Amino acid sequence: MVNINENYLKLKAGYLFPEIARRVSAFAEAHPDAPIIKLGIGDVTEPLPEACRAAMITAVEEMGDRATFKGYGPEQGYGWLREKIAAQDFQARGCEIDASEIFISDGSKCDSGNILEIFGPINRIAVTDPVYPVYVDTNVMAGNTGSASEDGKYAGLTYLPMTAENNFVPELPEGKVDLIYLCFPNNPTGATASKAALKKWVDYANANGSIILFDAAYEAFITEAELPHSIYEIEGARQCAIEFRSFSKNAGFTGTRCALTVVPKSLKIKASDGSEVALHKLWNRRQSTKFNGVSYIVQRGAEAVYSEAGQAQIQALVSFYLENAKIIRNRLTAAGIQVHGGVNAPYVWVQTPDGLSSWDFFDKLLYNANVVGTPGSGFGAAGEGYFRISAFNSRDNVTEAMDRITKKFSAIAA
Amino acid sequence: MVNINENYLKLKAGYLFPEIARRVSAFAEAHPDAPIIKLGIGDVTEPLPEACRAAMITAVEEMGDRATFKGYGPEQGYGWLREKIAAQDFQARGCEIDASEIFISDGSKCDSGNILEIFGPINRIAVTDPVYPVYVDTNVMAGNTGSASEDGKYAGLTYLPMTAENNFVPELPEGKVDLIYLCFPNNPTGATASKAALKKWVDYANANGSIILFDAAYEAFITEAELPHSIYEIEGARQCAIEFRSFSKNAGFTGTRCALTVVPKSLKIKASDGSEVALHKLWNRRQSTKFNGVSYIVQRGAEAVYSEAGQAQIQALVSFYLENAKIIRNRLTAAGIQVHGGVNAPYVWVQTPDGLSSWDFFDKLLYNANVVGTPGSGFGAAGEGYFRISAFNSRDNVTEAMDRITKKFSAIAA
Repeated sequence: MVNINENYLKLKAGYLFPEIARRVSAFAEAHPDAPIIKLGIGDVTEPLPEACRAAMITAVEEMGDRATFKGYGPEQGYGWLREKIAAQDFQARGCEIDASEIFISDGSKCDSGNILEIFGPINRIAVTDPVYPVYVDTNVMAGNTGSASEDGKYAGLTYLPMTAENNFVPELPEGKVDLIYLCFPNNPTGATASKAALKKWVDYANANGSIILFDAAYEAFITEAELPHSIYEIEGARQCAIEFRSFSKNAGFTGTRCALTVVPKSLKIKASDGSEVALHKLWNRRQSTKFNGVSYIVQRGAEAVYSEAGQAQIQALVSFYLENAKIIRNRLTAAGIQVHGGVNAPYVWVQTPDGLSSWDFFDKLLYNANVVGTPGSGFGAAGEGYFRISAFNSRDNVTEAMDRITKKFSAIAA
Repeated sequence: MVNINENYLKLKAGYLFPEIARRVSAFAEAHPDAPIIKLGIGDVTEPLPEACRAAMITAVEEMGDRATFKGYGPEQGYGWLREKIAAQDFQARGCEIDASEIFISDGSKCDSGNILEIFGPINRIAVTDPVYPVYVDTNVMAGNTGSASEDGKYAGLTYLPMTAENNFVPELPEGKVDLIYLCFPNNPTGATASKAALKKWVDYANANGSIILFDAAYEAFITEAELPHSIYEIEGARQCAIEFRSFSKNAGFTGTRCALTVVPKSLKIKASDGSEVALHKLWNRRQSTKFNGVSYIVQRGAEAVYSEAGQAQIQALVSFYLENAKIIRNRLTAAGIQVHGGVNAPYVWVQTPDGLSSWDFFDKLLYNANVVGTPGSGFGAAGEGYFRISAFNSRDNVTEAMDRITKKFSAIAA
């Protein structure tokens, strides 16, 4: 008789985005003519950079000629892509990251979930609250938690609150934790962490033998020069951190699929027999055995991001979304709403007016302004009273959404 | 202190293909002018079908226009692709498979490894011997085995021998097993299973509450009309089987990356609390949480396989490789070597002459004919005395390799 992974049965059914979809479709059914604008999910809307498209078309054509056809590639990704990433994303910022420490993948979501496979079953896991739900759910699925309580928190996880009081950068935990998920610029709050703030975490991890799983998917949105783009800008991070990056948000690859994970060779953990094991070796084995590399065509598209034209084009894309974020910030602030984020990130973290709950604000915005956002409480208990608005949309939609919210503000905030 | 997944430490270091690479590069270093022909790894060599390339170029162009740009797609794959697969690969052969039961992925290797995540820790696992090493290694990594013994067998796995005596179709096990990996047409032996043979396995699985993990990656190579292409051609399979398929070998997608897994909604397992859980629901949750779908561009390429032109082009590709297999079979048979497979599969399973060990034959072939194949013993203990020759190469290389083997036969077989 087959035995299933019963940890899946602990997962809460009401996952955030399906619940949003349910409410939106119920509203749309009742109001079929309502011109709904979605500023909810963090999906890009603008065309893929020309440099990337040109490179992919060339790659498709190469596939048509036996002399340039590509079969299985290296599971870790092609050297020409890994070298450019190492040089331009890391070494150019003073991070000692070698190309051989970079693993190309089809998504940061995949990697941040799959990375748990190389860790054992008795780690103490810390996540921020609010948090990107994938970090939590993948730990539930892996059996690293107990059951969920009423408020959605899973037994066995350490939650690190991010609030206006701590400027959305979590304090160090009181007890010891082993794996720590950090994401800066942050999804959902749009907050950033200074070098000094990250240094505290790196020092904590090195003092306690912990590993930081650092999600830098939004680093391209950083506008303030002193902020770190990579955890490896912090001294000591090569001994305690894995970093996840993606082409989804900077180059618009959400539907094209390419990302990368950095596992420094200096990350070493003691096994129970006393031997030292390099996490790089374990991740390499995981990827070689359970992954076959990213499409050659897509890797050529990602490589084009590093050309001069590609760099200019992704900068223009990022600036476009940041200008949206600025419009959202300014218009909401003028309407008397308190906002956070949106300066170094494509997300504006809105404090709901008049003490409304996140879901009440969601409903009011949907019914009065036909605008969809994401309730902060969906990201964790400490997100209650907050609301995420995404800057990923056309300029017209963003402006129109802000016009409506301003015009109907008395109804929304009532 | 972080705890690693110590199951990885049980993995045998000398994985088959790295060891082949090591021997080949040592030989090439000593003999820099030797014109080595590689008939080892199962990687395609011929250009990608024109229909697929044209569809991908159109898809890249769509990505350049806001109106047709695609961001995140459904994690399960686009409906238009799933519908075509359901209709042409399954329903056309009388299999009751619905599009919603098909999950598009970036590789069969990934899926056949990841599928273990939805199963629990106390299943009895059966694999054939010889076997595609990924089935074994992923079970080791998941903690479903003990340590490896001298002969490479892992404690806790049930090995089902495939030999000339049983026509390379394993007998039912004596005890009960829960998860059973079957691959037909088979890698590495090139053997096939009749409907009657598969019916015995389906009946066994249904009688014992087992699940069959059926790898049909090579179904396109079937030439004999009475052979089943899918396990769902067998009555009762919807209650006990998951099927893996790939575009790698039929359409040459090894470097382009697209595959699919079928999880029928009728597959239900009793959880320990007595509730019935659909594996479809678990796999859907796994993919939604840890995967973001295959590149839109690649899915359009895969869709083109189902056009009239695409079907003709993949048929031509498959016929080309099968003609290679026929040449290999005929030339080796004429030289007095006994061969199996290669009629409904791109692999010829060679009995080594004069009782040579698989690795001895490997070395003799490399040194005397400069031809690289794969030692059968690398696929398992029952593969000892066999040798896999792949038909994936150009016609010139295949003919030249056979000329050399024939000419040097006295040295090779000595």
